[in-house]
Amino acid sequence: MKDRIYIKDLKEHVGKEVTIAGWVNVRRNQGKMVFFDMRDMTGRVQCVALPSHADMIEQTKEIRLEWVLKIRGLVNKRPDKNINAEMVNGDIELEILKIEILSEAAPLPFDMSLDGYNLELTAELDNRSLILRQQKVQAIFKVQETIIDSFREFMKKNMFFEFQAPVITPATAEGGAEVFQVNYFDKKAYLTQSPQLYKQIVVSAFERCFSVNKIFRAEPSSTTRHLTEIVSLDAEMSFIDSWTDVRDMAEETVRFILKQVEKKNGEHLKLLNATVPVMLSKTPTLTLREVQQKIFERFDRDVRGDKDTNPQDEREICEIIKEETGSDFVFVYGYPTRKKPFYVYPNAEEPEYNEGMDLLCRGIEWLSGGRRINDYNQLMKHVEIWKMDPEKIKMFMEAFKYGVPPEGGFALGAERMTMQLLGLKNIREAAMFPRDMNRIDERLGNEGY
Amino acid sequence: MKDRIYIKDLKEHVGKEVTIAGWVNVRRNQGKMVFFDMRDMTGRVQCVALPSHADMIEQTKEIRLEWVLKIRGLVNKRPDKNINAEMVNGDIELEILKIEILSEAAPLPFDMSLDGYNLELTAELDNRSLILRQQKVQAIFKVQETIIDSFREFMKKNMFFEFQAPVITPATAEGGAEVFQVNYFDKKAYLTQSPQLYKQIVVSAFERCFSVNKIFRAEPSSTTRHLTEIVSLDAEMSFIDSWTDVRDMAEETVRFILKQVEKKNGEHLKLLNATVPVMLSKTPTLTLREVQQKIFERFDRDVRGDKDTNPQDEREICEIIKEETGSDFVFVYGYPTRKKPFYVYPNAEEPEYNEGMDLLCRGIEWLSGGRRINDYNQLMKHVEIWKMDPEKIKMFMEAFKYGVPPEGGFALGAERMTMQLLGLKNIREAAMFPRDMNRIDERLGNEGY
Repeated sequence: MKDRIYIKDLKEHVGKEVTIAGWVNVRRNQGKMVFFDMRDMTGRVQCVALPSHADMIEQTKEIRLEWVLKIRGLVNKRPDKNINAEMVNGDIELEILKIEILSEAAPLPFDMSLDGYNLELTAELDNRSLILRQQKVQAIFKVQETIIDSFREFMKKNMFFEFQAPVITPATAEGGAEVFQVNYFDKKAYLTQSPQLYKQIVVSAFERCFSVNKIFRAEPSSTTRHLTEIVSLDAEMSFIDSWTDVRDMAEETVRFILKQVEKKNGEHLKLLNATVPVMLSKTPTLTLREVQQKIFERFDRDVRGDKDTNPQDEREICEIIKEETGSDFVFVYGYPTRKKPFYVYPNAEEPEYNEGMDLLCRGIEWLSGGRRINDYNQLMKHVEIWKMDPEKIKMFMEAFKYGVPPEGGFALGAERMTMQLLGLKNIREAAMFPRDMNRIDERLGNEGY
Repeated sequence: MKDRIYIKDLKEHVGKEVTIAGWVNVRRNQGKMVFFDMRDMTGRVQCVALPSHADMIEQTKEIRLEWVLKIRGLVNKRPDKNINAEMVNGDIELEILKIEILSEAAPLPFDMSLDGYNLELTAELDNRSLILRQQKVQAIFKVQETIIDSFREFMKKNMFFEFQAPVITPATAEGGAEVFQVNYFDKKAYLTQSPQLYKQIVVSAFERCFSVNKIFRAEPSSTTRHLTEIVSLDAEMSFIDSWTDVRDMAEETVRFILKQVEKKNGEHLKLLNATVPVMLSKTPTLTLREVQQKIFERFDRDVRGDKDTNPQDEREICEIIKEETGSDFVFVYGYPTRKKPFYVYPNAEEPEYNEGMDLLCRGIEWLSGGRRINDYNQLMKHVEIWKMDPEKIKMFMEAFKYGVPPEGGFALGAERMTMQLLGLKNIREAAMFPRDMNRIDERLGNEGY
């Protein structure tokens, strides 16, 4: 739009006539004058129709919330008594000289103002298009944008190659009930549950790779932690000396993301009343058995010998580590080899435990990964023990047939990280268009699906 | 890996002992000495076992192509007569002092060397994992990485917000036979054909948005131009004055991408013998009717009155414009309104033609887009004329009910752009893991699908 000034830049135009464009955000009739706030993607500003412009008063009286306007106006300093130092543009206002209506809007079905906004999640999702205009809701996705972007930035800094992992996959050897089936011409195909095998293939050719991709889980679950479609941030690196190289890269990746969010999203964190978790210069790392021993000692609850952590274990070990060290993060590694996928690397000294790892924060798993088997014969042996059909992972096995360096990797869920970082109660709040067993945009089952 | 030097940096270590790690790329036995090239993600270097190190000669004799090695060696200047000025590291070689074998490899099924490599596409795809190590194949995906990355970079420079468009969609009003169906618990869902409606929703809240996302086409077609899973680069912008604002943004986006590819991928373009197409400072823009008239005049072929361009028209108009102006690009706009989707904006003076546009280059459409209807009542009228069920696009219609500025957008296919830019013969070469009606990694129909 020609000659348009962004609202954030108005303060540089005090005393001048400018054109802005945006939505009517808040409206106040005050007898002889009409006040309303205008909103564009950069900020908000108070506009005023003065009694000296009777035509403007008349026109602004018709105007309603969410109408889209182009306004010609004069940027004025506010009188001292009206200055709001807390607010951006709290010391200026726009005196309206001319209004062009770009689009009208129907009356809003509920209060969208910052203070008045108070919908329950179902109503939010039933009105998703409108709700995306709400400041707090926008803040969530601005933070998510930074999370995903910073992941990419850190990967690129570290020479990881970005590839596009596929969504449609063939029947895999792992299979499982939690996979969505696609009618693929006259055949069956599936939605990917993880780019794991693909990133290992890519790493066998490009050394280091990452991808930002969708993964799908057909879990028939309606908990606050489940979505059927998830954004996965995946990394894989080769020429490692030890699984701890993967751990350290994962730690530095998360650290970089947190720092970028702090740097770029200060106002969003404040609006959502969120604080970035504490990451020490070296995050504590414990084996599963050490975790279980600590839980036993601290809470007198005996989970020693369990094959994995459950949600209570995860909450408790995070609590213990926070008390002991101040860290909100803890790495857990050394899970029973047979309880994890076939490609996870068994520890050389104790092969019944593996070099897979999870990064927990504030009671929940944020990231998982570890070292993978890179030797073809060892991999083939695992394929047999795991009772898999090597023909169904032929392309994957081919990569390892021709020489692959020691390697490992990790993955983070973007929605879960957004939710945990911002202290949201439900993961659906952290997905712009959340999919679950009961909803794809609209609630399912009402009609026609 | 500790103390590892990247091969590209070896020239800074002449006369010193260093450690490198990578794959055996080319191997030459020359009687008393053994030569082979090592490859890592940064480059290639010749390594030599000298007669003075008999143990090294013995060890290197066993070594085969694609083995993964860690080598301790001395960086030597080559004797003048052996310098290859054409090559990176053509003036140095690594004298092998110690070898650690990180992984062995099976004998290669075909010649992978730069000169010897000459597979047909089916064989390439049947051996995808191994083929991804070939230098020319890697070059394709390095260029594709730049295309996608530069798209993002340009969008961000221009204040577009990145969002994650969904893959799983409900039954849409547009429907069509070319959509993949997903068994979604006990319901039906579909794979998205385009993020069109979602990006319009997001723009109604964020002003400008973009996404890099997968789209799916169930066309039962095996041509060289069809994939079932595609990476789409999508942009949408509001507060436009005219559809030409969208055209100009599209043009500048493509220009930026081309410039970045030229800047970052010089060696890849050379390897693939590709030249970046010519974009003038202002790309010629023609209406569909002007295109048809020019074809009639130049080739004496009468397509005047056709409702759209066909592939021959696209080739011919590109040829004409190239002759007339030197431009490899041409914008075509003004298609019959009723032949395009309901949301495309009809021209105000001639409403039977719309403000949709395509950008053609070298005979093929690279990008399409245009202005969209932003007025709720006009949109609702189109929904009726197009005989669509507004209930099935309820969330989309909701956005427009509450005030949306004049807006438009565009989309590019990453694989098609890669193919056209590099002069590849088949779009499958431009997808790392191409999906079509006959293949998902392995060829379909052989077993178990």
